[in-house]
Amino acid sequence: MVVAFEQELSVHSRTNTGLVIDVLEQQFGDRCQRSAAIRQQHAHTTTWLPNQPPDAVVFAKSTEEVADIVRICATHRVPIIPFGTGSSLEGHVNAPEGGISIDLSGMDRIVEVNAEDLDCRVEAGVTRKQLNSYLRDTGLFFPIDPGADASLGGMAATRASGTNAVRYGTMRDVVMGLTVVMPSGEIVRTGGRARKSSAGYDLTRLMIGSEGTLGVITELQLRLNGIPEAISGGVCPFPNIEAACNAVIMTIQCGIPVARIELLDELQIRACNTYSKMSLPETPTLFLEFHGTEASAREQSELFSAIAEDLGGGPFVWETEAEKRTKLWTARHDAYWAAFTLRPGAKGVSTDVCVPISKLAECVEETRRDISDNGLVAPIVGHVGDGNFHVLILVDENTPREIAQAEAFIERLNWRAIQMGGTCTGEHGIGQGKAKYMMKEHGNGLDVMRAIKQSLDPDNIMNPGKIMPVS
Amino acid sequence: MVVAFEQELSVHSRTNTGLVIDVLEQQFGDRCQRSAAIRQQHAHTTTWLPNQPPDAVVFAKSTEEVADIVRICATHRVPIIPFGTGSSLEGHVNAPEGGISIDLSGMDRIVEVNAEDLDCRVEAGVTRKQLNSYLRDTGLFFPIDPGADASLGGMAATRASGTNAVRYGTMRDVVMGLTVVMPSGEIVRTGGRARKSSAGYDLTRLMIGSEGTLGVITELQLRLNGIPEAISGGVCPFPNIEAACNAVIMTIQCGIPVARIELLDELQIRACNTYSKMSLPETPTLFLEFHGTEASAREQSELFSAIAEDLGGGPFVWETEAEKRTKLWTARHDAYWAAFTLRPGAKGVSTDVCVPISKLAECVEETRRDISDNGLVAPIVGHVGDGNFHVLILVDENTPREIAQAEAFIERLNWRAIQMGGTCTGEHGIGQGKAKYMMKEHGNGLDVMRAIKQSLDPDNIMNPGKIMPVS
Repeated sequence: MVVAFEQELSVHSRTNTGLVIDVLEQQFGDRCQRSAAIRQQHAHTTTWLPNQPPDAVVFAKSTEEVADIVRICATHRVPIIPFGTGSSLEGHVNAPEGGISIDLSGMDRIVEVNAEDLDCRVEAGVTRKQLNSYLRDTGLFFPIDPGADASLGGMAATRASGTNAVRYGTMRDVVMGLTVVMPSGEIVRTGGRARKSSAGYDLTRLMIGSEGTLGVITELQLRLNGIPEAISGGVCPFPNIEAACNAVIMTIQCGIPVARIELLDELQIRACNTYSKMSLPETPTLFLEFHGTEASAREQSELFSAIAEDLGGGPFVWETEAEKRTKLWTARHDAYWAAFTLRPGAKGVSTDVCVPISKLAECVEETRRDISDNGLVAPIVGHVGDGNFHVLILVDENTPREIAQAEAFIERLNWRAIQMGGTCTGEHGIGQGKAKYMMKEHGNGLDVMRAIKQSLDPDNIMNPGKIMPVS
Repeated sequence: MVVAFEQELSVHSRTNTGLVIDVLEQQFGDRCQRSAAIRQQHAHTTTWLPNQPPDAVVFAKSTEEVADIVRICATHRVPIIPFGTGSSLEGHVNAPEGGISIDLSGMDRIVEVNAEDLDCRVEAGVTRKQLNSYLRDTGLFFPIDPGADASLGGMAATRASGTNAVRYGTMRDVVMGLTVVMPSGEIVRTGGRARKSSAGYDLTRLMIGSEGTLGVITELQLRLNGIPEAISGGVCPFPNIEAACNAVIMTIQCGIPVARIELLDELQIRACNTYSKMSLPETPTLFLEFHGTEASAREQSELFSAIAEDLGGGPFVWETEAEKRTKLWTARHDAYWAAFTLRPGAKGVSTDVCVPISKLAECVEETRRDISDNGLVAPIVGHVGDGNFHVLILVDENTPREIAQAEAFIERLNWRAIQMGGTCTGEHGIGQGKAKYMMKEHGNGLDVMRAIKQSLDPDNIMNPGKIMPVS
């Protein structure tokens, strides 16, 4: 009986989807694609989640076009999956119920830059690197830097951050307003250009992190920062994780406005040494960067140096020359690729959690023990100023036992973080992969989220199967 | 026919309210009050909005008690109005449809302080000054400082800020999580203790600024800051508003991490001179404060000094001694009281707007012209680092023509700010007084807000008549 019903639903759904694709092809011509290759590429996932391609992909060029697509899909209750660069990590762009993927990468115009106000407006397909290239001559920069060169729309949708978040905040903090195509196809502008407002519900923040389940973000108003006059940065080794974490806590408590403070565990350092041809001591190490005037960047470096020394760490060697700093940070940014030298040919599965900083040492240590007890190869890298760390598990994807082991490890890691008052994801988002932790983390807050989803998207056409666990 | 229906509704409503008060009196004894004096005090408003008292006031002691009250009211569809210290400015605590005011001032426990994590958990009735007194020995402080010694629950509900926002953010930025009693009486915990998270919809930010219309905030997890090692501050006169605003823009663009940057117009300076026995030149003046190490606070002061000089301002005289700085900032904080020396016996009506900083000079200048064209007495004070400014209109409340003039002025001011890409309120909130600007500012975003309100509070019992304009 259940099977018959599901079949019926499936047939019904397919009929509608066919109809919708016909209409889209008529309107968008060869910007509506249904080849297997393109469909599969738009359901790209980096984990063991299966590739679940959409039925078609439409390459949109404007907010109005996105609204047209959404209206057509809404009329026929066909799912919509927004797509930026496909760099999300938890199956955010998969299409478990089929439907239409809206590719926003062609919406790559920088609409305006207001240097006096330190803000800009961009279309959702602009990537963070594209924006920073564009800003180069203005003396301004956009600070949020997840590993990938993600689209800014996607970064807002997953509430992304990166290495600068400890000083410059996350997407939550730097997005001033959005243009969103709602599930009905209506175009709504949230927020504005004022730096603060108390005027009504914070729809901007509601959309940030909603992963395309409440609407399609098509434009963003973003806060920018002035490029600092001086930057100093370097690496500082510590005898153990605890000492490194205590140095982070002291640094933050003392109000040193550190711009980046990143932890690499000994395994990751070994990988970086191999990959980036460095010779760092193989011990837990902090990568740091300070922004300010010449004098204040130097002073911050000196203050940190004293803290590190007090805790048995150091020496902290810092560079003010751009070239030497670039070498260090290239190594840090290449940490992901470096990890594969630890197990060539393996698949890397990246997961992240975030805990109160006071719990960071304990959480990382327990996680290290878990890794070693289970014979996993899994280096740790963390944005530790925020209490956020990543584990990259290197598995042989053809060995089911390994996949199962890795999955069980990730599950323990997430429960551990939540148990310590933290969250199952600091910056990757929920997607499909982490939906199972939502109940544990949010309790009946999940009912509130469901009520909001139901009220704005009663037919559940916006990126279905993401964020909310199947009840 | 309409009248008959309204009468019926009113009778029905009164019957329910009587029933609810009986139940509440049984449970809360003399913590349930219905005297006219207490009811009127709980509908306190600072404008010409009429006092609309609730039918009873219940003094709650715990989240569970608040949940009990809400459940009782929800069963009988009786309105609930959360009350902190009653310092809100736009009729937020008025009870236009009667109902039960929940006074949270007795929920004044500081639940925990986590010095290592720079956070704390407090009950909603704790005031900002109470929290800072409690923190005095920890080396930490809570930076958000609206004029009044408001309750932290109320500050979250109106998305409050103050003089430190340019550096430390607003309530939007410093609240990590909340305990909220939902309209059903369910207790929900939002957010958590991690400094960032990408796990699902941002319910914390949705509740911040919702002014009690989506639930009652009963506890807050707050981010704290380390008390800076050194503080320097002072005043800097400018030949005109434009030069002062340009100095603000330059300061922010240069990345000087100014902690406070406040504009007082010549009229306000005259008032401060009289009230606080100072002898500042009567010209647009910035009050500034810099936080950091000794060296960096000095360097910031010097950098600002150079900017001011370039723009024809100055001299910038700054103090590092706490006593002298306190005198200055006391004068700044007393600006509200000082204004009354300009027109003794008048009623002061405070309104605020916020615009992109590049529009600040133009907006303030136009507003000054409007004030003078209409013969109003209305000094201007602004948190200009955010583009936020306040006008205090001094009116004779017994002269209807003056009230009408002031109302018309406020309306022009708000339209002007919205027209310039700003908002009708930077920090006071909407309440009853500004609901009429919501449509102009948010357009169809208002429909999204209404849908959310409808889904979480279908019977509209949570602080009815606030935020949403009557449609």
